[in-house]
Amino acid sequence: MATINKNYKKLQGGYLFTEIAKRTKDFMEKNPKVKIMRLGIGDTTRPLSPAVIKGLSKEVKKLSNEKTYTGYGDTEGNKKLRMALSLFYKKRNVDLNLQEIFISDGAKSDLANIQSIFGPGNVVAIADPVYPAYLDSTVIFGRTGEFVNGKYKGLVYMECNEENGFVPSPPKQKADIIYLCNPNNPTGSVATKKQLKAFVDYALKNKAVIIFDATYVEYISDETLPKSIYEIEGAKKCSIEINSFSKWAGFTGVRVGWTIIPMDLLVEKNKLNSLWARRQGCMFNGASNVAQEGALAVMSPAGIKENKNTIAYYMKNASIIRNGLSKIGLKVFGGEHAPYLWVKTPNNLSSWEFFNKLLNEAHVVGTPGSGFGSKGEGYVRLTAFGNRKDVEEAVKSIEENLKL
Amino acid sequence: MATINKNYKKLQGGYLFTEIAKRTKDFMEKNPKVKIMRLGIGDTTRPLSPAVIKGLSKEVKKLSNEKTYTGYGDTEGNKKLRMALSLFYKKRNVDLNLQEIFISDGAKSDLANIQSIFGPGNVVAIADPVYPAYLDSTVIFGRTGEFVNGKYKGLVYMECNEENGFVPSPPKQKADIIYLCNPNNPTGSVATKKQLKAFVDYALKNKAVIIFDATYVEYISDETLPKSIYEIEGAKKCSIEINSFSKWAGFTGVRVGWTIIPMDLLVEKNKLNSLWARRQGCMFNGASNVAQEGALAVMSPAGIKENKNTIAYYMKNASIIRNGLSKIGLKVFGGEHAPYLWVKTPNNLSSWEFFNKLLNEAHVVGTPGSGFGSKGEGYVRLTAFGNRKDVEEAVKSIEENLKL
Repeated sequence: MATINKNYKKLQGGYLFTEIAKRTKDFMEKNPKVKIMRLGIGDTTRPLSPAVIKGLSKEVKKLSNEKTYTGYGDTEGNKKLRMALSLFYKKRNVDLNLQEIFISDGAKSDLANIQSIFGPGNVVAIADPVYPAYLDSTVIFGRTGEFVNGKYKGLVYMECNEENGFVPSPPKQKADIIYLCNPNNPTGSVATKKQLKAFVDYALKNKAVIIFDATYVEYISDETLPKSIYEIEGAKKCSIEINSFSKWAGFTGVRVGWTIIPMDLLVEKNKLNSLWARRQGCMFNGASNVAQEGALAVMSPAGIKENKNTIAYYMKNASIIRNGLSKIGLKVFGGEHAPYLWVKTPNNLSSWEFFNKLLNEAHVVGTPGSGFGSKGEGYVRLTAFGNRKDVEEAVKSIEENLKL
Repeated sequence: MATINKNYKKLQGGYLFTEIAKRTKDFMEKNPKVKIMRLGIGDTTRPLSPAVIKGLSKEVKKLSNEKTYTGYGDTEGNKKLRMALSLFYKKRNVDLNLQEIFISDGAKSDLANIQSIFGPGNVVAIADPVYPAYLDSTVIFGRTGEFVNGKYKGLVYMECNEENGFVPSPPKQKADIIYLCNPNNPTGSVATKKQLKAFVDYALKNKAVIIFDATYVEYISDETLPKSIYEIEGAKKCSIEINSFSKWAGFTGVRVGWTIIPMDLLVEKNKLNSLWARRQGCMFNGASNVAQEGALAVMSPAGIKENKNTIAYYMKNASIIRNGLSKIGLKVFGGEHAPYLWVKTPNNLSSWEFFNKLLNEAHVVGTPGSGFGSKGEGYVRLTAFGNRKDVEEAVKSIEENLKL
C-alpha cells in the first residue's frame, strides 16, 4: 500500500494570496464602480528589454533550421551564459570557475530542491518574516516538527524587527542550514558586509551552510554594500548563492536563474558541488534553451544598460511610494535597495486590519506582513513593480483618502 | 554541523555516457581519418516545425511590449495549453479537467520529483532494463538499500526479456510505486491494453500507484494500442501519467512537459493531486512562458500535422536501421512504435564487446544495453533520431563492414 509524505499535512495556509484575492473580490462586488489599485504584487510589469528580445528571437530562429537546431543542452547550463556570469562575478572580485555555476529555471526551484543534498537531521534557520518558499520546502523535506502556537517545532527563527533594522543576527542556538534573503523580501532591508560576515563566521565555526538568496541584489544602490556573499572572506567554504534573472531583467515568466556552489564548500568531506551536479543530472534537464539565450543577452553591455534603466524605473516607483506615505505620517522601511516597502501599521492595527483600511478607504491592495511570519505582524508589504501611472494614482489615493 | 544526504553515496556510475564518449574519443585519436557515425543519441535533431516557431515568436513579441507583457504564469501552467491537452485526451476518450493537468519543464523533473509526495517506506518497482532517471531518483529519495551484486536492495526489478517481448509483468512481490515506461526506452517495446490492464489490476488490488511515463506514445503506429494509461478502466484511481513535448515535437531543449494526477487518485484518503499542487506551488514557478506558447502551437492543427511528419521521418530511419541490420542476420527488436531499436548482440557478445565491434569495424557508435540495467546485458540500443543521410550511411557501413 502506497503512503503519502505526511510532512505535507504540517504545511500551513498557502492561504495568504487566496485570502487577499477573496477580500479584494468581495470589495469589488460591493463597490462595482470603484477602481482597485494594486501595490501588493511581487511580479514584474515592464517589458523585456530590446537586447533580450533580440537574444530570444535569435535562438527561436536557430531552432527553426536543421543546420542550427540543437536539442538537449548541458544540464548545468549554456556554457556561454556560465562564462558571462563568471566574468560578471569577477568584476565584483569574486573568482568562480564554470563548474561552480549551475543554470536553473529560476531561484525558487533551486532554493527548495537544494535541500535534497542534505541529511535528514539538519536544523534549518530562516528569517522571520521572510519569503515563504524556504519554510514550506523545509517542512516538506521533513526538517520541522508540528506547527504549534504560530511556530514550527525544530525550526530556528531569526527575528527581523525595527531594532535590528530588519536584518537578523546569526542564531544563538545550533543551526546547520541558514537561509538568508538579502535584500530581504518582504522587508526590503539589506545587510552590510559586517552583518554578513557575522553569518559567515557563525557558519564556519558551526560547520553550517548558508543558502544565500541574492534575487534582489541588482536593486542595491549603495556600491559599498555587498552584492554577493562571496565578497565576504571565507564564504566560499560555507555558502551557496542562488540568484535569478526574474527581478533583474523581467524573467518572472521566462524562467532562468543560477546557483553557485564553490568547490571549496565541503560537508563531511564531500563537495556539495558534486552532490548537486548529481542531483541535477538525475532530476533536471536544463533551463529552456530559448530562455537561456535571453539571459545571455541580459549580460551583454546593451542588456546590462537597459535593465539598469528598468530597475531605476521600479526604484523611482519605490521612492514615490516611500515619500507619499511618509508625508502623511506612515513609517516606511525598505524601498532603497529593494523593490519592497515595509509599512508599519498606524495605531497598532494588525496587518489584516490595515490591509482592510487601505482597501476600503484608499482602494489600494497591499500584502499583510503577517503572511510572511509572525514577526511580520503589524506591517504591510507594498511593492514597486507597478506601472508608474498606477503607482502615482495609488499613492495619491492613499494620501487623500486614508483616515489616520 | 551540516550533514549530507548519504543516499547519494549509493548511486552507481553515471559512467555510461562518459565511458561511451571516452571509448569513442580514443578510437578517433587512433583513427583520425575515419568518420564516426552516431546511432546512440537519444536526442532530437529535426528543427522545430513552422507552427511551433510561430508560437514561440508570438510570445517573444508579446513580452517586448508593455501592453502585452506578462510575468509569472500559473504554477500549474498556461490555461490554454491545459485546455488543449484536455481536448487532446478527449479524442482518446479520456476525460480530464484542467485541475488534473500540470504543465512542467519536461518529463524528467516530474518523474523524479513526484517521489516527494510519497512516504518514506514505499517500495518502488522499475523495469529492467529502463531509462535510468527512475532508479537514480529512487535512490536519492532513500527508497533503496545498498547496491549489491548489480542490484539495489529493497528495489523491485521487473524483468524485460525476449520471452515477454520486453514488456514486464506486474511484480509478484509487494510494490507501492511502479514506474512504467511505455513505449519503453531502451527496448522500444510497447504494451497492449491487456498488458497494461494487468498493472492497473495489480495497483488497485495492492493500493499501489503507477507512474506512467508516456514520453514516446506519439510514436505508436498501431491505433489499437493504448496511448494513455487512462484508456484502461480503473487507471484514474491508481495512475499518474507523465509526458513531454521533447520527443513528440523536438522540445528536448525548449523544455515543456505535463503531468496528470486525476482527482480520483487517493492514497490514504488524500488526493495526490492536492499534494502535488502544493509541492509545485512551493518548489516550482511554472515552465517558461515562451516555451509554453510553443507547446500550445504543437497542439494546433498545423502543429499536429507537422510533428506527425517529423515522427514519420524518424520512424523511416527506424525502419532503415531495422531492415538493414535484419538483412545481415542481426536480431532487432523495437523500432516499430518507438524511436529505439534493441539489437541482440551476435555470438553471445557482451553489450560492451558488441559496442566495440560496431565502433571498430563499422565506425558506428551505439549504446550498450547493460547501461540500462542488468537485463540489458547482451543488447545494444540504437536510436532513430539521426539525420537520414547519416542513418543510411551508418546502416550501409554496418552492412558492409561488420564481421559476423
